[in-house]
Amino acid sequence: MDNLDILGAFRTIIRMRRYTTRLRSLDRPGIVHAMTGVMLEHGANIVESAQFSDTDTGLFAMRTTFETESLDIRSIDSSFDSVRDSMGAEIELRAIDQPYRALIMVSKYGHCLLDLLHRHADGELAIDIPLIVSNHTDLVPVAERFGIPFEHLPVTPETKDVAESRLIDLISVHNIDFVVLARYMQVLSDAVCSMFQARIINIHHAFLPAFKGSRPYHQAHERGVKLIGATAHYVTTDLDEGPIIAQAVEDVYHSDSVEDLVRVGRDIERIVLSKAVRYHAEDRVILVGSRTIVFD
Amino acid sequence: MDNLDILGAFRTIIRMRRYTTRLRSLDRPGIVHAMTGVMLEHGANIVESAQFSDTDTGLFAMRTTFETESLDIRSIDSSFDSVRDSMGAEIELRAIDQPYRALIMVSKYGHCLLDLLHRHADGELAIDIPLIVSNHTDLVPVAERFGIPFEHLPVTPETKDVAESRLIDLISVHNIDFVVLARYMQVLSDAVCSMFQARIINIHHAFLPAFKGSRPYHQAHERGVKLIGATAHYVTTDLDEGPIIAQAVEDVYHSDSVEDLVRVGRDIERIVLSKAVRYHAEDRVILVGSRTIVFD
Amino acid sequence: MDNLDILGAFRTIIRMRRYTTRLRSLDRPGIVHAMTGVMLEHGANIVESAQFSDTDTGLFAMRTTFETESLDIRSIDSSFDSVRDSMGAEIELRAIDQPYRALIMVSKYGHCLLDLLHRHADGELAIDIPLIVSNHTDLVPVAERFGIPFEHLPVTPETKDVAESRLIDLISVHNIDFVVLARYMQVLSDAVCSMFQARIINIHHAFLPAFKGSRPYHQAHERGVKLIGATAHYVTTDLDEGPIIAQAVEDVYHSDSVEDLVRVGRDIERIVLSKAVRYHAEDRVILVGSRTIVFD
Amino acid sequence: MDNLDILGAFRTIIRMRRYTTRLRSLDRPGIVHAMTGVMLEHGANIVESAQFSDTDTGLFAMRTTFETESLDIRSIDSSFDSVRDSMGAEIELRAIDQPYRALIMVSKYGHCLLDLLHRHADGELAIDIPLIVSNHTDLVPVAERFGIPFEHLPVTPETKDVAESRLIDLISVHNIDFVVLARYMQVLSDAVCSMFQARIINIHHAFLPAFKGSRPYHQAHERGVKLIGATAHYVTTDLDEGPIIAQAVEDVYHSDSVEDLVRVGRDIERIVLSKAVRYHAEDRVILVGSRTIVFD
Repeated sequence: MDNLDILGAFRTIIRMRRYTTRLRSLDRPGIVHAMTGVMLEHGANIVESAQFSDTDTGLFAMRTTFETESLDIRSIDSSFDSVRDSMGAEIELRAIDQPYRALIMVSKYGHCLLDLLHRHADGELAIDIPLIVSNHTDLVPVAERFGIPFEHLPVTPETKDVAESRLIDLISVHNIDFVVLARYMQVLSDAVCSMFQARIINIHHAFLPAFKGSRPYHQAHERGVKLIGATAHYVTTDLDEGPIIAQAVEDVYHSDSVEDLVRVGRDIERIVLSKAVRYHAEDRVILVGSRTIVFD
Repeated sequence: MDNLDILGAFRTIIRMRRYTTRLRSLDRPGIVHAMTGVMLEHGANIVESAQFSDTDTGLFAMRTTFETESLDIRSIDSSFDSVRDSMGAEIELRAIDQPYRALIMVSKYGHCLLDLLHRHADGELAIDIPLIVSNHTDLVPVAERFGIPFEHLPVTPETKDVAESRLIDLISVHNIDFVVLARYMQVLSDAVCSMFQARIINIHHAFLPAFKGSRPYHQAHERGVKLIGATAHYVTTDLDEGPIIAQAVEDVYHSDSVEDLVRVGRDIERIVLSKAVRYHAEDRVILVGSRTIVFD
Repeated sequence: MDNLDILGAFRTIIRMRRYTTRLRSLDRPGIVHAMTGVMLEHGANIVESAQFSDTDTGLFAMRTTFETESLDIRSIDSSFDSVRDSMGAEIELRAIDQPYRALIMVSKYGHCLLDLLHRHADGELAIDIPLIVSNHTDLVPVAERFGIPFEHLPVTPETKDVAESRLIDLISVHNIDFVVLARYMQVLSDAVCSMFQARIINIHHAFLPAFKGSRPYHQAHERGVKLIGATAHYVTTDLDEGPIIAQAVEDVYHSDSVEDLVRVGRDIERIVLSKAVRYHAEDRVILVGSRTIVFD
Repeated sequence: MDNLDILGAFRTIIRMRRYTTRLRSLDRPGIVHAMTGVMLEHGANIVESAQFSDTDTGLFAMRTTFETESLDIRSIDSSFDSVRDSMGAEIELRAIDQPYRALIMVSKYGHCLLDLLHRHADGELAIDIPLIVSNHTDLVPVAERFGIPFEHLPVTPETKDVAESRLIDLISVHNIDFVVLARYMQVLSDAVCSMFQARIINIHHAFLPAFKGSRPYHQAHERGVKLIGATAHYVTTDLDEGPIIAQAVEDVYHSDSVEDLVRVGRDIERIVLSKAVRYHAEDRVILVGSRTIVFD
């Protein structure tokens, strides 16, 4: 029996738990050594690790997935206090078997919602989806099909405040970790945007920063571009200016009507949004100012 | 001997000349029939043909390459007068063996120029290049290497008018059909832009309409985009707003510095510009308002 | 009221019917002129047209969509007899308001089926889907969700002949125009392949001709490729060798496991298959030997 | 003065030297900690780091770029002996200011060579190019243009052995680290392939493993594929089967002739080869069996 066999045998006998840690700090010598030192104390194997030193800001970011026999997350988390203290680092730890809880918000278009639900059903998205919220009832049948509770939250200029209060309640009641705007056509108030910084993901149906605002496919058609795109980003109080998580484009041609752009765009939108949700769900995104580090 | 053999034999015996015709008119029944009728009179084989009916403007555009034994372009051209008159169509005819004459303008960056010259040498670009003009002398060795005359035309705020007069002279003296701005870093005056409408091609090092103006890679880096691009377009008096001919993008990552974006961008720029020049050189571009039809 | 207004008004008053014609013949002068002549007799506007002359085989292919007040397809079709006779051309005519009837066959993986059904529901695919057939029952709930009849047709070495007879019956009874193998994991017999030439579309989960046969993602992973792909093709008796309709690829990385390749592959498969089905449904594919012309 | 300013000031005062280390070992706890421990001893800042644990083989690979005041590479290298011994790891160390020396081999096509030389001139490729070797003289002018020595090494069945002996001499005399076959159309002998394992990079003008062997664009055209590609790989005794470093593809259409495929292919080839050379030159490639890990 050679080494590899022993390693394999070892893994099947012992039940290991996986954790992901994210670190953000000022760049300085010894951070990786300190972090891996703590992991070693817990007998951890590093499964995946990535780091990045941002020369513009002098910040250092690191994401590591490791597995260990230790099942007590509190104990592991407190072991990192030494690094927090000595390095002035922000460190977050999460057990992979505890998926984030995501609230999905939609209006009338179902393609992004469907894509998220199918990937979820296929096991591609490690999230729980306790609730879908919409300002319309068009997508009730989709929610029913997948057995997910649906709450209709109509929004008019008069009811906007009440609706947002209700939204905040729902987020709290359902222990929501992050919100996905899957073609939700209402603008959230500054208050909500500020309350859930880097926790609301939106899909904008254009290659930002081109074609901000409404009807981007009409804008794109009029401008005669040869590519159209979509952008998934965190929502900030500054509309369509939030940190970008993922983008993609497709070729379009002079013969494509606005309707064709919309059709092509649907594919891009759903792929880009689902990718961004996956990145967020797997703790792959770290915010540095108005930009994102994505440890893909 | 079957039919295909006969056709092949026929082709080798008879010397055929190839022509490309471009038509633009109000859409109405019978245009294609009328055009192909004229071609048939000349015993022409259609080698390639494409048409497009633009529902937004009601315009119809058509590009056809045909071959015929008739060598007299004037005679063929006048045969199209019947279509011009009955259909109110603009029709242009060109013999493929008479390539366009292109003037290339550059500043200090050589990658786009080199790409054009290599493709030209490889037979990919059916153009003549009688002259390279630059406001700097950095690229003199490149011009020499390829044996193409180089004229240094320095531009300062004071000499701008004189330089442009000289440019207009050169275009005239060398019978230039169109101008390629291959990373030429000066803005041409409105007068020159108007004088050579749809005859000056520029490469903008960004995915327009995002990141107009100067230092687009710096803008892109600051905004944290996940794709960067380049846009080849006709120059109009409205800077970076001219009709788009070709665009492309590449993925970029959080770890890419501005210098990395510049490096990745160079590849996109040269490919996009060379593609646009090829389209123009082969009469594949038809202007419809501020948009282009590209019969690829 | 200018010309464009008149044209627009004209279009709204008169009810027009749209037709698509596909032609295949030996290349010779006058074909386009003859075809458009017939259309003109019926007062037709050409909406879209494309042609291609294949120098390898000497064949000419043409696809035209036109609209006319004439509602009688038989009368229009017989008008093309003159071209059929004089040019020896094969010409097919179809009214766009009479969509093809497609039978979808699946096994256990639902992603391609779902994609087809969603695009169908979104109006992207102009087909009727009277029946889904499967050798398993896993996807019954999907069929029910969309209200499409589902027939379970189990296949074992012993029952294969019976199952195929039943399949041929179903195709006949439901007036099926073409069959889509949406990850159907059984090989059809030569008899069935021959009976429905260029009428069965399969998705192979690899970039053909690489990784033919089974478990292509395992093959790809083992070979260490940096791109994986999918291929939609017509089924012939020669497995994985049929004429290719559409292909696409995505980047993969050393860190991608076979499971990751499968996940990335699902996106490619469904996009490529749905594209091929759309091309076929819109009569955009013309077969020339073992290659396809796709008038996109 | 805040921390960031201090860091910046620190960096400008002290002259730092950059090193890249590559490690390959059996996966086990503590490797990263041990490696970063050694770096910390030398007061090193980690500039870039990536690691990968291959579950198939149980192997662990890691690449780190760090900077330190220590200029003595021997002393640093010997510090890693503790990790070599305790972990059974292969570790290689190189100073970034000591670029690899690459020999480029060509035949008649110049596009890949030109691309390499231009990127080299633009500072994109951190290599020295002491010599170009060719079995033809067509590209002598290109070599002269860039001032690089050129050796003509004709190869016939009779002279093949002599030519290869001379090649091995040249590699030795010029202290060549790796060889780039930039469309070199001769097959190297098994002896040479074995002698320079993972040190010869070839560009194959197809998406391997499709279209192995000669005339891949003809094969691709005949098969009617909708994408063509190129593959850069290490040369092994098994032709076109070596570990893949980089691949790319482009869309092609039914209207593309073999010549068009060749034209489109040239762009893919040069981009893919230059990318592979850059990866190798920056020590980004680690071999694991017949696959590569590319730390991009």
